[in-house]
Amino acid sequence: MPTVKDVAKRAGVSVATVSRVLNNSEKVSEQTRQKVLNAIEELGFKPNLLARNFRKDRSSLILVVLPTIANAYFARVVKGIEDTARKNGYGILLCTTQNSPEIAAEYLKLIERKQVDGAIIASAKIEIDFCKGLDTKRIVQACEFYPFLDTSLVTIDHKRAFYDIVDYLVKKGKKNILCAIGNEGIPSEFARKEGYKEALEENGLEFKEENVIRCSYGWTELYEKLRNLCCLKKYDAIACSSDLMAVGAIKAAKALGLKVPDEFSVTGFDNIMVSRIYEPSITTVAQPMYEIGEKAATILIDIIENQSVYVKQRIILPHELKTRESA
Amino acid sequence: MPTVKDVAKRAGVSVATVSRVLNNSEKVSEQTRQKVLNAIEELGFKPNLLARNFRKDRSSLILVVLPTIANAYFARVVKGIEDTARKNGYGILLCTTQNSPEIAAEYLKLIERKQVDGAIIASAKIEIDFCKGLDTKRIVQACEFYPFLDTSLVTIDHKRAFYDIVDYLVKKGKKNILCAIGNEGIPSEFARKEGYKEALEENGLEFKEENVIRCSYGWTELYEKLRNLCCLKKYDAIACSSDLMAVGAIKAAKALGLKVPDEFSVTGFDNIMVSRIYEPSITTVAQPMYEIGEKAATILIDIIENQSVYVKQRIILPHELKTRESA
Repeated sequence: MPTVKDVAKRAGVSVATVSRVLNNSEKVSEQTRQKVLNAIEELGFKPNLLARNFRKDRSSLILVVLPTIANAYFARVVKGIEDTARKNGYGILLCTTQNSPEIAAEYLKLIERKQVDGAIIASAKIEIDFCKGLDTKRIVQACEFYPFLDTSLVTIDHKRAFYDIVDYLVKKGKKNILCAIGNEGIPSEFARKEGYKEALEENGLEFKEENVIRCSYGWTELYEKLRNLCCLKKYDAIACSSDLMAVGAIKAAKALGLKVPDEFSVTGFDNIMVSRIYEPSITTVAQPMYEIGEKAATILIDIIENQSVYVKQRIILPHELKTRESA
Repeated sequence: MPTVKDVAKRAGVSVATVSRVLNNSEKVSEQTRQKVLNAIEELGFKPNLLARNFRKDRSSLILVVLPTIANAYFARVVKGIEDTARKNGYGILLCTTQNSPEIAAEYLKLIERKQVDGAIIASAKIEIDFCKGLDTKRIVQACEFYPFLDTSLVTIDHKRAFYDIVDYLVKKGKKNILCAIGNEGIPSEFARKEGYKEALEENGLEFKEENVIRCSYGWTELYEKLRNLCCLKKYDAIACSSDLMAVGAIKAAKALGLKVPDEFSVTGFDNIMVSRIYEPSITTVAQPMYEIGEKAATILIDIIENQSVYVKQRIILPHELKTRESA
């Protein structure tokens, strides 16, 4: 694909001059402009939309608010946002909050200051007290949904997804199933726990609060917790709320001499790369991560560009069970 | 630690009012201001520096330019930048370029537009043609160094690091060592190849260009290349330029029935989490990722805040060999 450099060479001008032509700068003579336009046509060059828009009234930037980038899940969501943004002439700026609602609110002020045209909040924790005065029309929530912020939304059915994977474990003959999920304050984790409970009860198994282990999404915390659970052998499976948790559970089971999946089955959630490359490969729920990002960006850009016809959208994308070796 | 909410409650005012006091807004009565200041003192509340600075003349934002976030390596570097930035009252905005020097240049324009106070380019590919007119004083290069951009720098000695791990393989008795590295145009990859060559030659082994495999940093491309290398059995080791490449090499060796590490040793590079959790765990070079980010942010913030005394810094941080199961 021809670049700006190729165009400059063909037209016999500098890259800066090509850039000025693309930006409709006044500083270029008509003759030079024509040379550049000819070169563009001859080479079939497609100007970088980002460059063309990166100027005037709009910032042509979208803010993406994430809890962290240290989770491969977000990389795929961001890629979906990014590809869609770029196609439409937008750049994206990412910020991470380490799940502090206060920090999220600080970054969201960039909307008001017109440094970005809008924001996608992807799973970052937010709180009502810090969200006052935000222009909710310019925000789309992705992955996670906080109902007090009345925005468009793109997510999956977290309850149903967790129900499906627990139901799968039960159908495989598992009867004493642990559940490892994240922080209680996170809406999707609340929903997943409900899914776990419903799957057990609809299959005639008892739900016990004590079988719900709360831990972080990495592998180490769950590993330690299971290693110290003297009675892991009385369980035959665990449904985890992330693929890295599943890695921790498999490591703990192995350390305790339990065969995975025969004696102890483990499931993950998200379908990040590690679930495919780990040995045993991990049975998990595939979230359509890329599509979530793509859809969220499409909705936001549509809102930015057609402000007069704001329609709030709530999109629930399908999930998919990926059966592999661990369960 | 007390929050803005606690202060608001104690002072009997809204969170917004506390925020106005912290920002020295004119809209607060003296009486209310005093109530808030008293509550702040009583609770020992430390105002969020980010909030305090997020206003006036400076943006108090640092741009971090990355090729991608889909590489756990960057998550650690960014964490180092972020912690340091936050401690000093700065927010960070990340952008990803997919290694397009043109896109990198577009984002770097945010410096000129004063939307950010400076930038850290962490491994993103840049080219001289797109970097004209950049204020190099406001840029720090991290991880990767492009000499045409005359900035401060924080990195490791990539040549020496690769030398060390190849030397380790030779000392372990390996004689036919492949090398898998990234794109030729990336300075650190050039340096690593030099390290590979030097380690072989200083140990009396022949360097052969054909034993250098070029591939992307993920696991699939190298996996495919090695699977299709009919004669993998004539080699006894491979030194890879990323930990995910090492995963690909291990998978390929296993698929060809080679025992790792006895028949075929594999080393990685970076020391990302997967190198620890993979089975076999992967012998690798630990880059001080967090420290690289920390140091780059410290240098940049120092430059931003003391512009009159600009001193260019070139920091080479130590690396460390991590010997594990794969070699």
